[in-house]
Amino acid sequence: MPTTLKEFEAVFPQLVEDLREHCRQYGLPKNILERYQQSLNHNTVGGKCNRGMSVVDTSTLLLSHPLSNDEYFRAATLGWMIELLQAFFLVSDDIMDGSKTRRGSPCWYLMPRVGMIAINDAFMLESSIYILLKKYFRQEKNYVDLLELFHEVTFQTELGQACDLLTAPEDHVDLDNFSLEKYSFIVIFKTAYYSFYLPVALALHFCGLATPLNLRQARAILIPMGEYFQVQDDYLDAYADPATLGKIGTDIQDNKCSWLVNQALRRADASQRAVLQACYGRKDKDAEARVKAIFAELHLDSVYQQYEEERVAEIRGMIDAVDETQGLKKEVFEEFLRKIYKRSK
Amino acid sequence: MPTTLKEFEAVFPQLVEDLREHCRQYGLPKNILERYQQSLNHNTVGGKCNRGMSVVDTSTLLLSHPLSNDEYFRAATLGWMIELLQAFFLVSDDIMDGSKTRRGSPCWYLMPRVGMIAINDAFMLESSIYILLKKYFRQEKNYVDLLELFHEVTFQTELGQACDLLTAPEDHVDLDNFSLEKYSFIVIFKTAYYSFYLPVALALHFCGLATPLNLRQARAILIPMGEYFQVQDDYLDAYADPATLGKIGTDIQDNKCSWLVNQALRRADASQRAVLQACYGRKDKDAEARVKAIFAELHLDSVYQQYEEERVAEIRGMIDAVDETQGLKKEVFEEFLRKIYKRSK
Ligand SMILES: [Mg+2]
Ligand SMILES: [Mg+2]
Ligand SMILES: [Mg+2]
Ligand SMILES: [Mg+2]
Ligand SMILES: [Mg+2]
Ligand SMILES: [Mg+2]
Repeated sequence: MPTTLKEFEAVFPQLVEDLREHCRQYGLPKNILERYQQSLNHNTVGGKCNRGMSVVDTSTLLLSHPLSNDEYFRAATLGWMIELLQAFFLVSDDIMDGSKTRRGSPCWYLMPRVGMIAINDAFMLESSIYILLKKYFRQEKNYVDLLELFHEVTFQTELGQACDLLTAPEDHVDLDNFSLEKYSFIVIFKTAYYSFYLPVALALHFCGLATPLNLRQARAILIPMGEYFQVQDDYLDAYADPATLGKIGTDIQDNKCSWLVNQALRRADASQRAVLQACYGRKDKDAEARVKAIFAELHLDSVYQQYEEERVAEIRGMIDAVDETQGLKKEVFEEFLRKIYKRSK
Repeated sequence: MPTTLKEFEAVFPQLVEDLREHCRQYGLPKNILERYQQSLNHNTVGGKCNRGMSVVDTSTLLLSHPLSNDEYFRAATLGWMIELLQAFFLVSDDIMDGSKTRRGSPCWYLMPRVGMIAINDAFMLESSIYILLKKYFRQEKNYVDLLELFHEVTFQTELGQACDLLTAPEDHVDLDNFSLEKYSFIVIFKTAYYSFYLPVALALHFCGLATPLNLRQARAILIPMGEYFQVQDDYLDAYADPATLGKIGTDIQDNKCSWLVNQALRRADASQRAVLQACYGRKDKDAEARVKAIFAELHLDSVYQQYEEERVAEIRGMIDAVDETQGLKKEVFEEFLRKIYKRSK
């Protein structure tokens, strides 16, 4: 039985208490402690927690038995560290993108008495990971591996962010900057490592199964799966029913280096390219509609359907070939794929 | 012989090359690598490097022999990690404070094509520490201690920043927020840990002398010394000759929770306090002059002289009482104190 958001969220208050307790030794002024707690709650809780919960679910699959209360708590704690890492990135991403809302609330930096101090709040979210790792995993023999895993995935995500921000600045449209190679780099580094590889790598460490072979196999499957997930995300942004998707896509107006625009650029003739250059990345409904018309002329809908079928077949092939002799299980990857294949939101 | 800035700076290009090499495995786009290198050079090099160099000098004192080339390189590498940590904090501090220049150049976020992407650049400066630690110190038995030391000092500095930013927002003057207790907290956490304790703690680790007793003694002396250093800094901001200091003090106009204003608030009568409340933190030369007049009425100049003598006597007493049986040396602290006592810039 997969875990529920309710069960997973029930762990977080203890972690907040641990972080408060850690701060107590420093005798910090009361208002600083309050602010830290507010930031932890506002920025870490309230999402779908798919990444965090998949540490728990993957661990359950790998161990082949229902987790004890203690096992659940520890696996969920590792899951919450991914959520903290994401919170660190989202708080700062919203500033860098000039976003207005996040998960239906104002972005943290737009809340009263926050502003640019949000940058330091983001740092503290990242630091929380290492406080919790030390508290709960210091005695484990793979503690160093866990530290290095978080360091590496953090840096990879930063590289992806850097590439995203430098390739598609919101205020300067230059489609010559875009390419499918850059797209892949951005997507793999900005999203796939922390969203797909990290949860499984953490679960492998948690279960004592993080052999080089198992980590290598996990990465070989989950990075393409994360890339496919983001391609889907980009596709849905333009093609999904906003009512089902739960939001109105803004990638075209936001000058995003998305899969669709890269596919369009690859296929466009000179006049279609000129329309894209003139209309992409404008905060303007009509310009957006003209871009969508080009997407339709180029049949990107069926280009996507074909991509999805091919990619999923390829991933299924890799899953079938997984070597389970060191305790890794195909089921782990089947479960990830099941959750995203043909999703509509 | 203490090391020179020239010798210390000569190590940095190799570290930049190591970081570039680390990135090569990821196949990142050329412009991202260029940008990372620019950020490393612009933000890490060009300061006085007192913190970084003191890892080398402290190690030389502790080992009682001139460092071999390899020892110099490794100690300096630890020193550059402090400079990277500082760069991470300064880049973001300048955004949060809305500063214009740093070390005589425009702040990084004000450079062409940087802007808020500076936030992600700052993250990458922090990550660089852990890439270098892994490359050069992974095989050492105190690798985990080094990782934890950087994590802890990073979080302590973040707490100090949080307190500073929440106590003295530049756009909202409320002297009731200030107190000498908060002042101490800010100064110790924002400055003393990473500037005074961290270099010596790193040198102790480097020399294999990081026993609990030695670390405890180092902290007990260096935290008060760091506090004294910042009090001096605040004093010089208002009282030093700008020609000698090399800059014009702006703490009064910037609404800084400085040692002087806290001493003034403690001594002011109702009418003096009203002047401070009306004039502190205004971007206005006349208001600043009226604040300085109150400082003069309250003889903060001699309050400072007395503070300095008392504090230094106290620190000297602690140095005299250092237990050297586990290889720590009084000289280390005498050297730190010698550099700052009665400084005029
Ligand atoms: Mg964003
Ligand atoms: Mg973004
Ligand atoms: Mg999207
Ligand atoms: Mg500043
Ligand atoms: Mg500041
Ligand atoms: Mg100053």
